[in-house]
Amino acid sequence: MTETTASTTRYTVAVIGGTGPQGKGLGYRFARHGHDIVLGSRAAEKAEAVAAEVSERLVGVDGAGTARGAANADAIAAADVVLLAVPYDGHDELVASLADGLAGKTVISCVNPLAFDKRGAHGRVIDDGEGSAAESAARIAPEATVVGAFHNVAAPGLWGEEEFLDEDVIVVGDSAEGKQVAIDLAASVTGRPGVDGGKLRLARVLEPFTAVLISINRKYKTHSGIRVTGLDH
Amino acid sequence: MTETTASTTRYTVAVIGGTGPQGKGLGYRFARHGHDIVLGSRAAEKAEAVAAEVSERLVGVDGAGTARGAANADAIAAADVVLLAVPYDGHDELVASLADGLAGKTVISCVNPLAFDKRGAHGRVIDDGEGSAAESAARIAPEATVVGAFHNVAAPGLWGEEEFLDEDVIVVGDSAEGKQVAIDLAASVTGRPGVDGGKLRLARVLEPFTAVLISINRKYKTHSGIRVTGLDH
Repeated sequence: MTETTASTTRYTVAVIGGTGPQGKGLGYRFARHGHDIVLGSRAAEKAEAVAAEVSERLVGVDGAGTARGAANADAIAAADVVLLAVPYDGHDELVASLADGLAGKTVISCVNPLAFDKRGAHGRVIDDGEGSAAESAARIAPEATVVGAFHNVAAPGLWGEEEFLDEDVIVVGDSAEGKQVAIDLAASVTGRPGVDGGKLRLARVLEPFTAVLISINRKYKTHSGIRVTGLDH
Repeated sequence: MTETTASTTRYTVAVIGGTGPQGKGLGYRFARHGHDIVLGSRAAEKAEAVAAEVSERLVGVDGAGTARGAANADAIAAADVVLLAVPYDGHDELVASLADGLAGKTVISCVNPLAFDKRGAHGRVIDDGEGSAAESAARIAPEATVVGAFHNVAAPGLWGEEEFLDEDVIVVGDSAEGKQVAIDLAASVTGRPGVDGGKLRLARVLEPFTAVLISINRKYKTHSGIRVTGLDH
């Protein structure tokens, strides 16, 4: 795979949960492909330490953006785009605490509400089956433009490899402009634009789909992903 | 893609809903690759007419199986494996009416409980988010071995083309033996075994995922499918 980036817009992305594996990995990919990232954490120092790790990997990368760390609210204030990469436990409270800052921003949720038991991974039931983490964020931060994306991209590959991942990022949302941001950013991960997968409510499917991939990973000892076939990328 | 079939077991498959596009298309693929199919319908004559159409396409195909039609209960009685390819409306009642015959058989559900409104396709909420069509079938026909598979394979390609489809069939179920049947049969459609996607409850994800593919199809004017990456097929 060639390292060309389809996106031409340079975004500043705050990564809430930026010290976790998914946030750090996605942030790294965004910065590697020319976007600026502000990793957010409850404690600024922790975010700064991880940002330093990311910055180290950007040295000498042609056209790379920048990485820095900040407390969550400061990270959001510095960005046009906010990636929510936090565990589902505590998600609603965290979004509520940041809702003022999220107003007017594009918020990309990759939050996967999963549960695990003896039978493996499965989706947690939200709002009696009529909700999802992304829809909860949209409800709690009504002045943000919330989209769902990057649910099914496994963290180990994001951080552990340099090549584009052989999979697709499916983006859902009720705002075409909001979806376009995630579609652009997906190119930093896969080398091609994200795939518009429809309305925000379909996050109810993308979020628990990760449980299927986890099951496949266990069975086949691999890191699986999804590709959408039939598209002319 | 080459027309080799990975499966060596020859199954007799009753296709309930065998006169609908999904059932007819899957039945045709199974028969084309050496399995025997009995298309089932409420009226035997209708099933026989569609079976004749399928048989016509099997003429001269090396190693093809046979296709015939029958009333649903007779189709089931003649088969080891039953494919449920019926609309979700009326699904539970139909399964209840056939439950005695299904006892002891492997039942593969490809039923997609979808709803459509102005905002597009989306999954219907079953049992407050804790159920799926496949789980309903398992509950209603407790002596059958129910697995879920073939949810995301689009009918037009099944009937309209002869080549293997460039996608994967994900199989879920609580019985390894039951899943193996669907994994084998998947090779008739994709040229490679189906992918074991975990427990039956994950049908809650595979069934509404079809709504995502329908949204993609509308947006990109295509017939999309899923491929699982990271597998060494």
